[in-house]
Amino acid sequence: MYKLVLIRHGESTWNLENRFTGWTDVPLTDTGIEQAKQSGRLLKADGYEFDVAYTSVLKRATHTLWHCLDQMDRTWLPVVHSWRLNERHYGALQGLNKAETAKQYGDDQVLVWRRSYDTPPPALEATDPRSERGDIRYAKQSPEQIPLTECLKDTVARVLPFWNEAMAPAIKAGKRVVLAAHGNSIRALVKYLDNISDDDIVGLNIPNGIPLVYELDADLQPIRHYYLGDAEAAAKAAAAVAAQGQKK
Amino acid sequence: MYKLVLIRHGESTWNLENRFTGWTDVPLTDTGIEQAKQSGRLLKADGYEFDVAYTSVLKRATHTLWHCLDQMDRTWLPVVHSWRLNERHYGALQGLNKAETAKQYGDDQVLVWRRSYDTPPPALEATDPRSERGDIRYAKQSPEQIPLTECLKDTVARVLPFWNEAMAPAIKAGKRVVLAAHGNSIRALVKYLDNISDDDIVGLNIPNGIPLVYELDADLQPIRHYYLGDAEAAAKAAAAVAAQGQKK
Repeated sequence: MYKLVLIRHGESTWNLENRFTGWTDVPLTDTGIEQAKQSGRLLKADGYEFDVAYTSVLKRATHTLWHCLDQMDRTWLPVVHSWRLNERHYGALQGLNKAETAKQYGDDQVLVWRRSYDTPPPALEATDPRSERGDIRYAKQSPEQIPLTECLKDTVARVLPFWNEAMAPAIKAGKRVVLAAHGNSIRALVKYLDNISDDDIVGLNIPNGIPLVYELDADLQPIRHYYLGDAEAAAKAAAAVAAQGQKK
Repeated sequence: MYKLVLIRHGESTWNLENRFTGWTDVPLTDTGIEQAKQSGRLLKADGYEFDVAYTSVLKRATHTLWHCLDQMDRTWLPVVHSWRLNERHYGALQGLNKAETAKQYGDDQVLVWRRSYDTPPPALEATDPRSERGDIRYAKQSPEQIPLTECLKDTVARVLPFWNEAMAPAIKAGKRVVLAAHGNSIRALVKYLDNISDDDIVGLNIPNGIPLVYELDADLQPIRHYYLGDAEAAAKAAAAVAAQGQKK
């Protein structure tokens, strides 16, 4: 049996400001740093060990991982970054306050973007200063790989090659894997692992900064999954994520 | 022409307490963190970019690198850890206050250990709680690879394979390399690059937390080297390192 640990990054400054973040590279808040440290303390207390860590190229995930490894006294572990683990790209909504977006586009439209599996928000122009196409960290990707917007279906499509080509082979080779990533890149993995329907996955909320453990069989089929630490706290945190779009 | 950047970690708690550290995994002081950040600010101000970063498996070097990358907004860069980049192992002296060691073993003997290229301090017993042979981070190394003491010659012998097998090929492949490591693992590289004699290398002191830039030709022969930032500050910091053994 294998164990895979997934951690959504701690609270970021734009989580706090209730803005669509996507690929924008915002840092953790003090609360987010504390959540990340707490993840590490929980993993350490339960005796978790890892051979490799995966994260995105966004600092809120990388910092979450670093704080977590620090608490585990495992700062020497190999860390692999991939843009494929980035958050869902939110297109022209990136940077907008979620409540104001609702005001501008209407509650119904925002609900469609948040709840639909395959309807992306309006795309960024490639020349928009918010576009990541000129960002040095993506210099090795082709422009077509750098999205201007994404629906969750698009996110799933670019996350899964990383699972298939990097993470799954590592796990099957006996490596113990921890991933620090984002709400939607983790949703992509969870959808795939648990074979969740398109309709249901958009309603599944991953709380910030709480280790989610998947026990997998020899074929990497899930046996069960659970959050570390206080189960009630995890449920509460997931509900808070779900409520974000409703805030005015 | 290639550029290689070497950074000795910022001040650690045991630098401050004037104790022999070696492979003991002590953290940075607040001063050390500030030095690391300043390294990053200097590199950023001068427009340095890197493709890969190397560091040891000790947290004072890893944290130095992390703070540096943070300041450069390059937290997404690949980082490679190697035990071969660790500090010189100080054997039975690890943990002892340098002044007290002088009192116990005599000034002359300590000077021999500090100034001799090929005389190691007394070895740790493999069963000594200070020995790293049971440390999980070295689980993939054979026990013989985990020293119980080292002279500088031994450190050079285990650093150079990493240069030859990892760093030099990366540089020749056009990758821009930064290394965050330790006084003696950096001495090992500098000795090799500049072909410094056994007698002279022990008198060469690398200041904490100041980027040291080597410009190398197509055959990786050094053209020149220099510290970034205030040259006088770098010289002063090196002199402070040299004076550490004399403190009572």
